[in-house]
Amino acid sequence: MARPMQKDIDMEISRDSGDAAGRGIPLRVGIAGLGTVGGGVIKVLDANAALIARRAGRPIVVTAVSARDRSRERGVDLSRFAWEDDAAALANREDVDVVVELVGGADGPALTLARASLHAKKPFVTANKAMLAHHGLLLAELAEISGTPLKFEAAVAGGIPVIKGLREGAAANALSRVYGILNGTCNYILTRMENEELEFADVLADAQRLGFAEADPSFDIDGVDAAHKLSILASIAFGARPDFAHVETTGIRDIGLADIKQAAALGFRIRLVGLAELVGDTLLQRVHPSLVPLGHPLGAVDGPLNAVVAEGNFVGRLLFIGRGAGEGPTASAVVADLIDIARGEAGPAFAMPALALAGFAPAGPESRSGRYFLRVRVADRPGVLADLTAALRDAGVSIESLIQQASGADGTARVAMVTHETTESAVQHALAAMAALPAASGAPLFMPILPQDG
Amino acid sequence: MARPMQKDIDMEISRDSGDAAGRGIPLRVGIAGLGTVGGGVIKVLDANAALIARRAGRPIVVTAVSARDRSRERGVDLSRFAWEDDAAALANREDVDVVVELVGGADGPALTLARASLHAKKPFVTANKAMLAHHGLLLAELAEISGTPLKFEAAVAGGIPVIKGLREGAAANALSRVYGILNGTCNYILTRMENEELEFADVLADAQRLGFAEADPSFDIDGVDAAHKLSILASIAFGARPDFAHVETTGIRDIGLADIKQAAALGFRIRLVGLAELVGDTLLQRVHPSLVPLGHPLGAVDGPLNAVVAEGNFVGRLLFIGRGAGEGPTASAVVADLIDIARGEAGPAFAMPALALAGFAPAGPESRSGRYFLRVRVADRPGVLADLTAALRDAGVSIESLIQQASGADGTARVAMVTHETTESAVQHALAAMAALPAASGAPLFMPILPQDG
Repeated sequence: MARPMQKDIDMEISRDSGDAAGRGIPLRVGIAGLGTVGGGVIKVLDANAALIARRAGRPIVVTAVSARDRSRERGVDLSRFAWEDDAAALANREDVDVVVELVGGADGPALTLARASLHAKKPFVTANKAMLAHHGLLLAELAEISGTPLKFEAAVAGGIPVIKGLREGAAANALSRVYGILNGTCNYILTRMENEELEFADVLADAQRLGFAEADPSFDIDGVDAAHKLSILASIAFGARPDFAHVETTGIRDIGLADIKQAAALGFRIRLVGLAELVGDTLLQRVHPSLVPLGHPLGAVDGPLNAVVAEGNFVGRLLFIGRGAGEGPTASAVVADLIDIARGEAGPAFAMPALALAGFAPAGPESRSGRYFLRVRVADRPGVLADLTAALRDAGVSIESLIQQASGADGTARVAMVTHETTESAVQHALAAMAALPAASGAPLFMPILPQDG
Repeated sequence: MARPMQKDIDMEISRDSGDAAGRGIPLRVGIAGLGTVGGGVIKVLDANAALIARRAGRPIVVTAVSARDRSRERGVDLSRFAWEDDAAALANREDVDVVVELVGGADGPALTLARASLHAKKPFVTANKAMLAHHGLLLAELAEISGTPLKFEAAVAGGIPVIKGLREGAAANALSRVYGILNGTCNYILTRMENEELEFADVLADAQRLGFAEADPSFDIDGVDAAHKLSILASIAFGARPDFAHVETTGIRDIGLADIKQAAALGFRIRLVGLAELVGDTLLQRVHPSLVPLGHPLGAVDGPLNAVVAEGNFVGRLLFIGRGAGEGPTASAVVADLIDIARGEAGPAFAMPALALAGFAPAGPESRSGRYFLRVRVADRPGVLADLTAALRDAGVSIESLIQQASGADGTARVAMVTHETTESAVQHALAAMAALPAASGAPLFMPILPQDG
């Protein structure tokens, strides 16, 4: 075949097309925070430099960095870059065109740097979901009024381009619902509990040993991290002001292996699902362990993967799956934002102008409907099942299936139930009545069930 | 809760923020082609007008249309729009800012309109995969030299934002491989054959009756449609010139229910997979029925869905799933492109400048390696299996598993084999030797096997 190879094309370009192949004026980047992701961004820009320059139309180069500890070994050569002890100083350097914030934390240095960057009209790229969840509206207003891009693909679902997918890819649609698996640590723990028949505490300890969970894991396993991400997705999907305060958040600490087994026997997997949904004039935002039918696409999302589903009024159901954390995937998303900025990409941070973002009242339990999984522990003696079913009947909740598990050593039985379609307020009434029974042992637990086709 | 409702926000916006909420100068659209997708675009722009204006920063309105038959009933009121009998005239209308081409066909009126539009420096949006596969490089050059956007999200995988996902979302990565299920008709047929134990011809006839397959289905079932889409994905993923001529294309006509059953017995599903992969300095582009391991994410993509997987050197494996065809999903993608144009989105059509796109030599069978599924029909008599295995041994192909199926009424037996890792040239040698055996009946068939983790 006498067709030109990449090498020949390279020569042709260097001869003929100059800037067109990525030899334009470099975009100069200042990075604050040189942990895993910060180091990853430098590695991506090094490893794929020529390719990125072609795609971006110009080289993207790091010129200055800032971190807490200059001497820490990071596997990248920092001597090429200017150093700032104070991250905020990056925003005012003449050799920095765009600021990347990877410091973390909702307030403090990250927020100071964001403000400094936007005031200086320097595009601001961040992976900081906590800051966006708490201060997203403020930052969007600063970005808009200064005409400066604010981008945060890495803040949700790591390497999966889901911010772009919702903000741009699904932009023609009114979205009714967006939900997904937003925390890889929880998904890893639940998957291992299921596959290896282990209890939560044992898997968590092992995950910490292997680096899949932090020494203080509460941010992940209590659902806070997923809630930060969900508030950002909800804002983009529904034109809502980011509203972390109204994300109802329940983590996975109370999920036992017995729950996973009973759910499996009923045809479900347990996943920590973040879900946002318009319910009339109100907005439901919730992170909660949920039952996913075995045939549902989220049921097959295992281990540390993330997944996001969006449902639009013309496109139907869109599903994005990929790696939700880690050096490579997260750095990939940060650099995608930088390439967009280099290309001159524009448009509002949360998909519509900050002033057009609406504040929604949270959806109450009476306006939520669906099927639910209920689990109670009761003394294993005659008449208890009649008391439970009477509590359900009195609350107007009807039961599709029920499993009573033989008593354990403590003389209690576990009763797991799947309801027919009902309201969540009815479920809560039933749970309160069941908790008040003399035979009840410990607080009952409930989980929403994702519909198969939604 | 004393929080402002959407309604209050609307009033606030109409009072205070003017253009910021989408009341800017309208983007005026001319649409050529008013079939299913053209009608769908009008419906999307009507139904979601206010939302789209906010997201785009300005209203997007259709001003002029062109189609073959003015009187056909389309379920939309056309009296609002100017009418052009000649599609190309849309490009020169003063009341048209951007042209949408939904006429179809690689050449003819579609290409004439594309040229007219780009010469007039009017952004051009198309769903025409055939035209892009054949003339993509020309159009990209015209777009670039005139500084005019050329966009085609709807050309590949319908409503799934996979062009954007690769071109922008994964832009930081060197991609090694992109593959997927790119034709919903074939996937629908294969899924029904498998689920209902039907033969190809019966499902095809039923699909035609139900509108899931065209009266002349060859474009879909012979893999041409998927090959058009694959050449576009390969261009964006690898910086390659769109090169439809070198997509090796095999459709699903020769797949029988017996093949599906034997593949299932060996742990696989059969899907029509389009795959593009860099192999050294060469590019493999192939559409071929393929074996997908049951645990592979593509194995769960059923019915008319499409799915695309991209593997990047930092992000890892990204997976996009959604509806690949139909009025709503395809129109959703067309309108997403219009919103990008309204927002001022820029950047090269195929992810890098046209002059930087490389021509790759096609990868030969000697440079392809993997596991393969082989199936032969042979006379059911002693010694035949020895002849088959000798042919494999002589070609240097070793077998991982083998199923011989009891003879049918015609006295032949079906032998299905899965090889260990080998080269495709070795497989072809073995197939040629097996076809030459006196006992062979009909041409042997082979299918590549997708790796579980790739």
